[in-house]
Amino acid sequence: MILKLNSIYTMDCIDFLNKIDDGFADLAVLDPPYNMRKSDWDTFKSDKDFFDWTFSWIDVLLPKLKDTGSLYIFNTPYNCAFILQYLVSKKMKFQNWITWDKRDGLGASKRKYSNGQEAILFFTKSNRYTFNYEEIRVPYESVERMQAAEKTGILKNGKRWYPNPNGRFCGEVWHFTSERHKTKVNGKVQKLDHITPKPLDLVERIIKASSNEKDIVLDCFVGGGTTAVSAKKLLRNFICSDSKAEFVEAAKRKVKAL
Amino acid sequence: MILKLNSIYTMDCIDFLNKIDDGFADLAVLDPPYNMRKSDWDTFKSDKDFFDWTFSWIDVLLPKLKDTGSLYIFNTPYNCAFILQYLVSKKMKFQNWITWDKRDGLGASKRKYSNGQEAILFFTKSNRYTFNYEEIRVPYESVERMQAAEKTGILKNGKRWYPNPNGRFCGEVWHFTSERHKTKVNGKVQKLDHITPKPLDLVERIIKASSNEKDIVLDCFVGGGTTAVSAKKLLRNFICSDSKAEFVEAAKRKVKAL
Repeated sequence: MILKLNSIYTMDCIDFLNKIDDGFADLAVLDPPYNMRKSDWDTFKSDKDFFDWTFSWIDVLLPKLKDTGSLYIFNTPYNCAFILQYLVSKKMKFQNWITWDKRDGLGASKRKYSNGQEAILFFTKSNRYTFNYEEIRVPYESVERMQAAEKTGILKNGKRWYPNPNGRFCGEVWHFTSERHKTKVNGKVQKLDHITPKPLDLVERIIKASSNEKDIVLDCFVGGGTTAVSAKKLLRNFICSDSKAEFVEAAKRKVKAL
Repeated sequence: MILKLNSIYTMDCIDFLNKIDDGFADLAVLDPPYNMRKSDWDTFKSDKDFFDWTFSWIDVLLPKLKDTGSLYIFNTPYNCAFILQYLVSKKMKFQNWITWDKRDGLGASKRKYSNGQEAILFFTKSNRYTFNYEEIRVPYESVERMQAAEKTGILKNGKRWYPNPNGRFCGEVWHFTSERHKTKVNGKVQKLDHITPKPLDLVERIIKASSNEKDIVLDCFVGGGTTAVSAKKLLRNFICSDSKAEFVEAAKRKVKAL
């Protein structure tokens, strides 16, 4: 079986990756299981089993990235600590530990601080990678101050500085409302196609920053399809899979609707 | 030499820790070197040297915590990934990966997302530890909605819920302005006693949550004294040190001024 670009396959992630040529993808955006036991696809016999499996698909994935390629892996901060070490041991280049501050849906606890973040590891194969910092500027927070500064500038460490009309450089703590909370009705969360979709605007930021038009974006845990939809909107190519047919069907519908 | 409570010593951290009895401290709040090469005390020959040294003081520290004790270690996210793994291997109990979102002083970069966070690892010796969640509630963000809800309640997943007058549970992404940016004059950062002090209110949150009055708070990297000042204000006992005499002198002055 030969895989085609701009297709979404129902396959095990390792089977899918094995069918891809080495050096094929410009960007991999991966939201794998977190070992949270919230679904059958996210339940492992032990932490060791979970990490062994996680490192096994990473081993198959890394050669499929171009030497100029970038990699983003989502997970809990705890799991990302172990994944970061593994990627460093495989000689990948660490760029950022991105914190997705979800600011809602906090898992309330009386025995520790309430959970409310996910981590995203950003690594590259080499130092020759795409990073379109101009495409991902974010609005300044102090709006009035910046409007005034457009005329007169701001004194910063002895020099006069003028704001950029597109805003400031993008930092590594991201504030996006989770999809579950965007779609609440009367305070009640709605059932979505997938229980843990990533916000479209978050994935778009990644694709804008770390790829160019026509580049190939790979995602072997595409779930409800956010990576494929973002890639298509931004005129990138994609090659995606998920192990669950119902997610793949939902993802294909969303891509077709664009 | 016998160490006295509520004192700050100029000593190497390992020498200091070796003079402390096992099971002495209720809480350790540690802001060690980050291997950033910004000062002589933060410069190591290699990453391996840095981590070997870091793990060596951790080995001496852990027995000095009570079985009911808590531990907070600050560092860059990258370093915290390695430290987390080490603490897990030493059978400490992981509670939270706390993100301190600094929201200012971003290290601007055109080749990656701009740095603007630090990580704080929160671990405990056992499951029998202090966590005063009521003392650290934070104001709700949607103020008007909460004021209305005080009278009528809010419908949440089919039940009626009323706000707590002290706010919501504290999450694990913290937003405190760094000390450098609080003290800016005409856009210029001022020289502080120490180049990387932690905000007083951030350290107070830790001490309120993870200790009770009269408990012993340990800090062998006390720098400009924030841990000692916070502990004294909150009626805890402290035992602190730093390797640099000028920092210890500044810290002693601040504690005396209370």
